[in-house]
Amino acid sequence: MTPVSPATSVLDPDRLLPAEESLRAIARDLYELVADAPIISPHGHVSPSLLIEDRAFADPADLFIVQDHYVTRILHSAGVSLSDLGIGGGHCEPREVWRALASRWHLFAGTASGYWLQDELTSLFDLHEELSIDRADAHYDAISERLRLPEYRPRALFDRFGIEVLATTDDPLADLSEHRTLAEDRTFSGRVLPTFRPDAYIDPHAPTFLSSVERLAEWSGSSLDDYDSYLEGLRARREHFIENGAVSADHGVRQPYTEEIEHDDAARLYARAVAGRLTDDEARLFAGHMLLKSAEMSVRDGLVMTVHPGVFRNHSTATFQKYGPDTGHDIPVVTEFTRSLRPLLERFGNEREFHLILFTVDETAYSREIAPLAGFYPSVFIGAPWWFLDAPDAIRRFRSSTTETAGFYNGSGFIDDTRAFLSIPARHDAARRLDAGFLAGYVREGRIGMEKAERIVVDLVDAIPRRAFKL
Amino acid sequence: MTPVSPATSVLDPDRLLPAEESLRAIARDLYELVADAPIISPHGHVSPSLLIEDRAFADPADLFIVQDHYVTRILHSAGVSLSDLGIGGGHCEPREVWRALASRWHLFAGTASGYWLQDELTSLFDLHEELSIDRADAHYDAISERLRLPEYRPRALFDRFGIEVLATTDDPLADLSEHRTLAEDRTFSGRVLPTFRPDAYIDPHAPTFLSSVERLAEWSGSSLDDYDSYLEGLRARREHFIENGAVSADHGVRQPYTEEIEHDDAARLYARAVAGRLTDDEARLFAGHMLLKSAEMSVRDGLVMTVHPGVFRNHSTATFQKYGPDTGHDIPVVTEFTRSLRPLLERFGNEREFHLILFTVDETAYSREIAPLAGFYPSVFIGAPWWFLDAPDAIRRFRSSTTETAGFYNGSGFIDDTRAFLSIPARHDAARRLDAGFLAGYVREGRIGMEKAERIVVDLVDAIPRRAFKL
Amino acid sequence: MTPVSPATSVLDPDRLLPAEESLRAIARDLYELVADAPIISPHGHVSPSLLIEDRAFADPADLFIVQDHYVTRILHSAGVSLSDLGIGGGHCEPREVWRALASRWHLFAGTASGYWLQDELTSLFDLHEELSIDRADAHYDAISERLRLPEYRPRALFDRFGIEVLATTDDPLADLSEHRTLAEDRTFSGRVLPTFRPDAYIDPHAPTFLSSVERLAEWSGSSLDDYDSYLEGLRARREHFIENGAVSADHGVRQPYTEEIEHDDAARLYARAVAGRLTDDEARLFAGHMLLKSAEMSVRDGLVMTVHPGVFRNHSTATFQKYGPDTGHDIPVVTEFTRSLRPLLERFGNEREFHLILFTVDETAYSREIAPLAGFYPSVFIGAPWWFLDAPDAIRRFRSSTTETAGFYNGSGFIDDTRAFLSIPARHDAARRLDAGFLAGYVREGRIGMEKAERIVVDLVDAIPRRAFKL
Repeated sequence: MTPVSPATSVLDPDRLLPAEESLRAIARDLYELVADAPIISPHGHVSPSLLIEDRAFADPADLFIVQDHYVTRILHSAGVSLSDLGIGGGHCEPREVWRALASRWHLFAGTASGYWLQDELTSLFDLHEELSIDRADAHYDAISERLRLPEYRPRALFDRFGIEVLATTDDPLADLSEHRTLAEDRTFSGRVLPTFRPDAYIDPHAPTFLSSVERLAEWSGSSLDDYDSYLEGLRARREHFIENGAVSADHGVRQPYTEEIEHDDAARLYARAVAGRLTDDEARLFAGHMLLKSAEMSVRDGLVMTVHPGVFRNHSTATFQKYGPDTGHDIPVVTEFTRSLRPLLERFGNEREFHLILFTVDETAYSREIAPLAGFYPSVFIGAPWWFLDAPDAIRRFRSSTTETAGFYNGSGFIDDTRAFLSIPARHDAARRLDAGFLAGYVREGRIGMEKAERIVVDLVDAIPRRAFKL
Repeated sequence: MTPVSPATSVLDPDRLLPAEESLRAIARDLYELVADAPIISPHGHVSPSLLIEDRAFADPADLFIVQDHYVTRILHSAGVSLSDLGIGGGHCEPREVWRALASRWHLFAGTASGYWLQDELTSLFDLHEELSIDRADAHYDAISERLRLPEYRPRALFDRFGIEVLATTDDPLADLSEHRTLAEDRTFSGRVLPTFRPDAYIDPHAPTFLSSVERLAEWSGSSLDDYDSYLEGLRARREHFIENGAVSADHGVRQPYTEEIEHDDAARLYARAVAGRLTDDEARLFAGHMLLKSAEMSVRDGLVMTVHPGVFRNHSTATFQKYGPDTGHDIPVVTEFTRSLRPLLERFGNEREFHLILFTVDETAYSREIAPLAGFYPSVFIGAPWWFLDAPDAIRRFRSSTTETAGFYNGSGFIDDTRAFLSIPARHDAARRLDAGFLAGYVREGRIGMEKAERIVVDLVDAIPRRAFKL
Repeated sequence: MTPVSPATSVLDPDRLLPAEESLRAIARDLYELVADAPIISPHGHVSPSLLIEDRAFADPADLFIVQDHYVTRILHSAGVSLSDLGIGGGHCEPREVWRALASRWHLFAGTASGYWLQDELTSLFDLHEELSIDRADAHYDAISERLRLPEYRPRALFDRFGIEVLATTDDPLADLSEHRTLAEDRTFSGRVLPTFRPDAYIDPHAPTFLSSVERLAEWSGSSLDDYDSYLEGLRARREHFIENGAVSADHGVRQPYTEEIEHDDAARLYARAVAGRLTDDEARLFAGHMLLKSAEMSVRDGLVMTVHPGVFRNHSTATFQKYGPDTGHDIPVVTEFTRSLRPLLERFGNEREFHLILFTVDETAYSREIAPLAGFYPSVFIGAPWWFLDAPDAIRRFRSSTTETAGFYNGSGFIDDTRAFLSIPARHDAARRLDAGFLAGYVREGRIGMEKAERIVVDLVDAIPRRAFKL
């Protein structure tokens, strides 16, 4: 009766499907409909150069640990110095870094990172025995060997993963030549799309705000303190992104605060911003205004607007100063949408061609604010569970918290939002399994029929993300 | 093994019961104890004129779509203009409105509205095949035919539904003649009770505050700016409601903020309020004071006090101006109870005959604030899941979040709070199924015995709402 | 099929294990590994004099009702006066108090308190029939009889319960002679550790702040308004606690607000605090500063720092004045950690020997703030579900909300935090059953292997609390 995984593998073919047999049977049927569907990844952080250069990955430690702050943060929480993981420039023997993970593999039990890693090690590297300090070297060698093979190069994996669309995240002044090269490369069939990410250009609190707007003014040949040229510069850069295949603009803001202010007031604020003379409140006001202006630009040029709010970045100053950003200490905060977004929605909420996708790491907002907003405004879509919430139980809570208010068709489809290229299939697969399980529950409880569930499970990986991201 | 509903019906007799067989068996036994129990509906928005006039419902579109903003909001979120649904005065062919729903029926999969509609179409109209654009006309015709039959008139349905008590929601100056007519009608056996809803009279922020207090002053023949007469007028109107059967007064406030202020300060604020000269903060203060005074009146006259806070009404100004209130864009906000209600509870919290029922659309408050308050104060009751939370998964979360802290007997019993008359049985039935399933889980886990569960499931639809609402 | 408990007992041997058979089988195997493991209780409120005096418990009413405000609050919520329960000094016939509970036993169905009481009555007193008014006297007599037996004295029960470590909570000026006596008593093998609880000494808002710091100044022979002596006094008292076995210092703060302020500013604030001349904001600032200073002391002397924030104490002033504190009306409020703790974590977050255990009664903070903090900072541990959240469904939500982000090894292990000595085994047993069930779910879904689950379930009651509390 006890359903231990077969001795030969730690990867259960029924993993993440519901425990109860009648549910699992339905879920399995639904999952099979989408298990091999192409991957649409309209938001993420893989670098396009990975696919341009198409070089072999360096080593198992770099691939699975050093480059993945989801992993290093857990090791750090157990007292491992980031320096000892090869972060921040110092040299570490990759095999030692790998052993640091292997000897602490139990820390990852039950975590989303542990799940993805397990999936990757087994599915991609045929390592059917669980990682441990005893097996650390054997695993390291086995992975290293594979990484030298041509079929483990990024492009080969891209094909193997069945990725149809992959969006990157890019600085507004990026020339996007890599995207063009890939688009023109007849040997490469995937769509790799840039994403316009203007945070550093529109939020005076951003550490690089000044240097960013200076570069923008330089590029557009206009005066730094001229607000209209600044707006025109942003519009022109968005145009450049659209010409290179972009479908969305992404906004990582502390709070989804928006404010409508008069042109002349905004111009004055901007002039003082570039002079570094805004108070905190003024900076917040200007950022809120620019989020609203970004929506206006989206209404005009058609770029889908995604908002990723509510993260306190670089919580540990000492860590940030020594190791830089994205080192595991971005911590969520309470996030408010109903009042904060109202000025924006008053202007553009009922525009039918405007798409505004709201993500959150404060899951209390799903049932209270995001689903009710998406259940009314034609422009609003519910972003898939993001970051810490991209995890099996959290994904179930997400579906449970949003579906009854807004249905399945007001969502974005799954978003992996990852810089860990090798984890993309494991992440999408997990989401598909969880959605199949969730739908199975509704079928088993007589809430939707099997035919309907079959349609929905397919739409969730195809029609729904295509519509939300205008693909 | 796959439990697809029988081909002849989309309505599973075991719907909403737990998937697992041992749980489902217990839940079924518990549900059967209450499946046919009378319906007590002590708070809702059905108009008494529906039962006075007892006319045939107009047509399927008006009945199921136009009058139900839970339904129109989902269609609106998919880009359908409210005008095209016959809202806001323009004429639309009802059959076309019905087709607009039928062609988008998949949007309702998994939603609470979809569940209720499915139940109504099958239980009341014997439509055993799921709605679709292909079946739109056949369904429309079948419903229309039924609606012309005498047994589909409101009073006949009231009897068929087994409604014992139905509360309406009424303006304090309503003369309540309809309630008297129904009470005196020997051919009608149900109790239809008015509910005193004074929001527009006690919150200076309300758009109709001035006209409301003017009408009240006129009715009582007192000077508009006389605070004592104003209070006396409210008390007299409550008395009028009580004489006509009212058991409760309902308060829809933005936040459950209360404040104790001195009589003379309150009188001065009131005088400035009717002169339209309050600042925002003063208006909030006065409204908080009047919520506390309303509690004081309840302590004296015995009306149960219900509070429905935390909704940002009419979020989209353009929609409100064109189509009016209750058109699908009331959006929840974070709601605080512990501090906000303290002044009120300091005064009246331990009064044993005072009943204060706290509803929320911010479900985080259930385990954090509402259940702990109800688990101490004899006056405080936990309101049933309301609005967006009146949905299967949300109801389960509600039970799970409140029972361990406050038990089953500190609640209000199920509240449908609906203006969709035909949905009343489906809503109460869903709640009964979910409570049976929840109790089954506790029985199966050895947390309560079957006998206790049998008592509780019955009390939840009878003794508990009768006690909470003093019926 | 319906799994009603055997007629001879209300205590199901499989209680709290998952309903579904395949899960239950796994859970049972895991539970059996820890069912009889020693109890480590590193934070609670049992008085050491209980074990010093080792007297028979007074009577069933005093033992199970009067001393347990978790129980009296539910009775109060149903309209029973605390005076009628023998609280506040007046005399009540214990048998009558017991009957007051027995006649309202249904109110406790589904509550955590009801679960523990049921477990205690059955496991310890062999009362296999459920409490009711009819059985009230028989139960009362049976319990009374047992309480006179030597094996029902506190020390005998301490042994029977298998308690290895029990921490008390103590005033900083406590002389701890009882702890020394117990430590030196060769007939007593348990470890009973004091816990340093300085709230009244470091928060100027505390009602006894002035008298507390006066006693401290007197003890240290220093001037009351000398900030450095004050700090030194606190340090010396911590040292005294450490010498008497303490491993932690506990902080019950309204909000986990911390602030770094300059020495001289702090000294001035302190001088004004002891003169009773701080504004509310200054008092908050000083308390926030002292929370940070307490962390600094922990870094130096090694005491684990536990923080129990977010409770509005003594919500009902009238009840507090008549019956004192801890009478059932401490109500949770929204609690913020990410920003509030930042000044403290900026200073000490990455100190590896510093242990900061964060508790909450606002469960929204688990997935949003506490787990992400614990998943990065080596110093931060996730406190077990506390107070209202120490209940089966809440514990499940806790595991589900924290594990995916921070794993199993960033937690504190189970904390009973109780003053109800007899409930300690029932509480730990419940936690073990729930963790076994939670792990079974992960095993059954292929998320962790059975071997790993076996290790984790054991570590959760042994290695994990030992590490977190430096035992």
